[in-house]
Amino acid sequence: MTSALLSPAPLADLDTAALREAHAAFAQAYDELKAAGLALDITRGKPSADQLDLSNDLLHLPDGAYRDAAGTDLRNYGGPNGLPELRAIFADALRVPVAQLLALGNSSLTIMHDTIAQALIHGVPGGELPWGRQSISFLAPVPGYDRHFTILERFGIRMIPVPMNEDGPDVEAVASLLAADDSIKGMWCVPVYSNPTGAVYSEEVVRALVSMPAAPDFRLFWDNAYAVHHLSDDRPAPIDVLALAAEAGNPDRPLIFASTSKVTFPGAGVAFFGASEANVAWFQHNAAAQSIGPDKLNQLRHVQLLKDADGLSAHMEKHRTILEPKFAAVDTAFRERLAPWGAGTWNAPKGGYFVSLDVLDGSAKRAVQLAKEAGIAVTPAGATFPYGDDPRDANIRIAPTFPPVEELRTALDGLCTAILLAEAETLLAGRD
Amino acid sequence: MTSALLSPAPLADLDTAALREAHAAFAQAYDELKAAGLALDITRGKPSADQLDLSNDLLHLPDGAYRDAAGTDLRNYGGPNGLPELRAIFADALRVPVAQLLALGNSSLTIMHDTIAQALIHGVPGGELPWGRQSISFLAPVPGYDRHFTILERFGIRMIPVPMNEDGPDVEAVASLLAADDSIKGMWCVPVYSNPTGAVYSEEVVRALVSMPAAPDFRLFWDNAYAVHHLSDDRPAPIDVLALAAEAGNPDRPLIFASTSKVTFPGAGVAFFGASEANVAWFQHNAAAQSIGPDKLNQLRHVQLLKDADGLSAHMEKHRTILEPKFAAVDTAFRERLAPWGAGTWNAPKGGYFVSLDVLDGSAKRAVQLAKEAGIAVTPAGATFPYGDDPRDANIRIAPTFPPVEELRTALDGLCTAILLAEAETLLAGRD
Repeated sequence: MTSALLSPAPLADLDTAALREAHAAFAQAYDELKAAGLALDITRGKPSADQLDLSNDLLHLPDGAYRDAAGTDLRNYGGPNGLPELRAIFADALRVPVAQLLALGNSSLTIMHDTIAQALIHGVPGGELPWGRQSISFLAPVPGYDRHFTILERFGIRMIPVPMNEDGPDVEAVASLLAADDSIKGMWCVPVYSNPTGAVYSEEVVRALVSMPAAPDFRLFWDNAYAVHHLSDDRPAPIDVLALAAEAGNPDRPLIFASTSKVTFPGAGVAFFGASEANVAWFQHNAAAQSIGPDKLNQLRHVQLLKDADGLSAHMEKHRTILEPKFAAVDTAFRERLAPWGAGTWNAPKGGYFVSLDVLDGSAKRAVQLAKEAGIAVTPAGATFPYGDDPRDANIRIAPTFPPVEELRTALDGLCTAILLAEAETLLAGRD
Repeated sequence: MTSALLSPAPLADLDTAALREAHAAFAQAYDELKAAGLALDITRGKPSADQLDLSNDLLHLPDGAYRDAAGTDLRNYGGPNGLPELRAIFADALRVPVAQLLALGNSSLTIMHDTIAQALIHGVPGGELPWGRQSISFLAPVPGYDRHFTILERFGIRMIPVPMNEDGPDVEAVASLLAADDSIKGMWCVPVYSNPTGAVYSEEVVRALVSMPAAPDFRLFWDNAYAVHHLSDDRPAPIDVLALAAEAGNPDRPLIFASTSKVTFPGAGVAFFGASEANVAWFQHNAAAQSIGPDKLNQLRHVQLLKDADGLSAHMEKHRTILEPKFAAVDTAFRERLAPWGAGTWNAPKGGYFVSLDVLDGSAKRAVQLAKEAGIAVTPAGATFPYGDDPRDANIRIAPTFPPVEELRTALDGLCTAILLAEAETLLAGRD
């Protein structure tokens, strides 16, 4: 796409004349891209149609059955904790004892939202006041998940960004913030294949997070969304955050969330909540006023589809087979198109749903805008930061799972063209 | 069961000797009842197994299908408003335009709870402050639905009882309370076949409720749970509460809730929310932070099962066929066992799920306790009043739907024995 006459080199190292030449070549490539009239979308972490096909048995199940192993008629009211059989399938991967793992409705986002709403109205065990009667704040490792931030923004809870490292959030930063400010009541954590950096929290980081001094009603919102979503054979051992927290004398600190959204169907799945006995009792007490029980037949469908922990693992291998080429395509595109120009740094995640790309400071918004104008929808720049505010304007979240791989390659190639043009613009503007 | 020597007459009219004789006969009957070792349950408004069987096609549906009429893949994320096809099926019965009727998750109780939680945290359109920043109260027509009361009790919202008439709540009482107290922000209404009295709100009452002066953020929580749950051919015309409220200049006053819980499966149904455009926009804004969309495949199942408004009506006729003999059994039991002793007054509802029985003041708790000790579980006396406090200790909610009709007859007969004994005890105690 770029001029054959131009020999790639890190853009920032080019002299102004060479940079102008590069800019002209990128602009021409971009005009050709726009002329192609694409309509592609890599905005969201959605499974692709062929991933959804892996669970199509759910469209026939439970095949006339409607009783659980104990003989309960699942068609009727009741069963607020969810099916024990389904909770048993996920207990090992999530490292939560079945008795403390609840299987609930369609969305873990809903459980997280509602947990914060209940904490605002009632407070949590160990706290003196409802969160809503105080001016509270949350720690938000960045880059992070925009829907986490939206919940807090909607509730008027202040977010304090914390840097993410490859082994989890910067625990020294977390510890010094917590020590200085007891209005901090929560922290978002995606401990395995973090959204979007793919970081996996190390045991050392987890031990630090559950041990460090904090307010008694401080909670780790442990969104283990990608616990079983591996993309390689190099897999982290599940960390038993509840046991580590108990060992550290803070058993009530972690609140664990997960779902089958990216295991079966995002539009018809099952969410999980796990925590200490005290937190689970608190949750159940709140939920008793809210619901007579979750959709238990959908839970039965999931039991019949996945069968057991091994069945779950085998099912996730099929997802991996579909997803690996897409993540490889991201890496290839960026290696071929961005690396020669020194135009980006990114991760090659071992699981999860995203690649986090950092472009030249001050270029992300413009690159995403250029891509959009060329018919390639990308997650808005800034979305990975609280209030949509990426102070460096550098981070772009790549969600490669949804489109077919050929469309994905086309979208990535176009995005790279947009990024190169945006970076050349930024650098030229800096030399005016 | 009672002594053949004893000639029934209103207990309150008996002289003390006759009352003692009646008491002895009831006590003997009760001892025989206890000796029978029953284990029966008429506590909750649950459909019976043969009612659930009417919807067993849901256990195979959507039979491989996963797209709505517009071609959207319902397996994936999205579609926060729910399936238009399903909303269209219920729009007529609920008298809500499809565009203002949302199809959501498994439980209307959850929608009601969450709506109040959002109002506490954010306030509602037209209000100046979040409800949670004020000391607010709700009007609660009594007898009413215990789960409504539980939500408010849990949130610390004061409940003010209002008497129910046969055509709805006493509108003069409501109007004078609203005029005197602008802390009143809500009122529970079950407008059709009210729980438990079976009252159907008249158009006159509805017009009064939507017209009378009230705080701008006052809301009618219009729980239309039994809109299509008829038990006779004498059916109320659906009332368009949204249109009447708009006509009265208070378009945002009603919030409408409904569900398929007693249409298909209580454990795997679909809930609905309907309101003015402003309220729907408010709801959608809140829900956008809480969920990426409800379980759309379950909504598709319901579309395939019910097909259209006529299909819904035909389906409800099958429920009626199963339920009519049970409600007849209640009426028969009370006529045969209570009426001769002047021992109760009750309604013969034309729809819904309950019969409301009033026994001699001061006898309900004791009667329910006696029944329980004889193995017959009945809704706790007082449950139909806020805080479980029935000031007359007279009301007992009868939920006849769940047990097979023979079991129901046995349970009712035993309950009547318990009531007669309790009333004789109460009267004798009053003559000491």
